[in-house]
Amino acid sequence: MRLTVQTDYALRMLMHLAVNADRLSTISEIAERYDISKNHLMKVAQVLSSWKIVESVRGRAGGLRLAREPNRITLGSVARPLEASSALVECFPGGAGTCGITPACKLKGILAEAKEAFFTVLDGYTVEDLVRRNPALHDLLTEAA
Amino acid sequence: MRLTVQTDYALRMLMHLAVNADRLSTISEIAERYDISKNHLMKVAQVLSSWKIVESVRGRAGGLRLAREPNRITLGSVARPLEASSALVECFPGGAGTCGITPACKLKGILAEAKEAFFTVLDGYTVEDLVRRNPALHDLLTEAA
Repeated sequence: MRLTVQTDYALRMLMHLAVNADRLSTISEIAERYDISKNHLMKVAQVLSSWKIVESVRGRAGGLRLAREPNRITLGSVARPLEASSALVECFPGGAGTCGITPACKLKGILAEAKEAFFTVLDGYTVEDLVRRNPALHDLLTEAA
Repeated sequence: MRLTVQTDYALRMLMHLAVNADRLSTISEIAERYDISKNHLMKVAQVLSSWKIVESVRGRAGGLRLAREPNRITLGSVARPLEASSALVECFPGGAGTCGITPACKLKGILAEAKEAFFTVLDGYTVEDLVRRNPALHDLLTEAA
C-alpha cells in the first residue's frame, strides 16, 4: 500500500512552509532540504497553487508561502485529490480496468469503504498538527542547509 | 494509493476458490479466468498455502482449494501481511528511509493511523461476504472459460 510521490512531497512542502511561515521559501531550498526532486516539487507546487493552498510570489525575490493558516489545511483535503488518479486496484479510476468480474465484484465497494476510512483519518488533522509544539522539526527545517 | 498486485491477486484467487469450493482449481485456470500472470499467482498461492489459508493438493489431478471456511478468512488477515513490505511513504518499513525529518515527523504516526483504519475496515469482511448471494459472480467464475 503506497501513496503517490505527489502526496508525499506535497505534505513535506506544506510542513516546510508552515515552519517557515515568516518568509518565502524557494523550490530549490525545499528540494535541497529533503534531498528530493526539484522537478517533482515544482509540479506539486503548481497543483497546490491552483488549489489556493500555496501562494507563489513571482520575481527575483519570489518564492512560496501558505495561502491559508495551517490549521485551515486538512491533510485529507491535500491527499484525497492528489491520490484520486492512483488506482487502489485496477478496477478503480485510473486503473487498467481489465478485470473480468468487475460487474459482479463486491470487493470493489469494500475497498472503496476502506480507502474512505483512510482519508477520513487524514481529514481529522491539519498542517498545524504536524508543526505545532514540535521544536525538533522547527530546528530541522530552519537550520542552514 | 495503490495496493500491491499480490493482495489484488490473492483476493481474486480466494473468490475463485470460494465459488468453486466443490472441486480443486488449478493456477492455470485461475490465471486464464482473470487473464493475469500465472507466475504471480503461483507465488501468491505459495504464500497463502504457508499461511494455511489455501491448501495445495499435489499430483496430476491436484490443485488448490480453501483450507478454511470462507467465513473464517477475513480480508484484513490476507491484505495486512501482504501489504506489510509495501511502504506507504518512504519512511515506512520497506521504504528507502532517506527523509531527513523522520526523527521529528508527526505525519508518520498519522499516516500509520490512517493505514490501520483502512485495514480495520477489511477486518470486518470475510471471503464469504464477497461470494454469498452473488449469482452473477458464480456465473462468471464457473462458466466454461
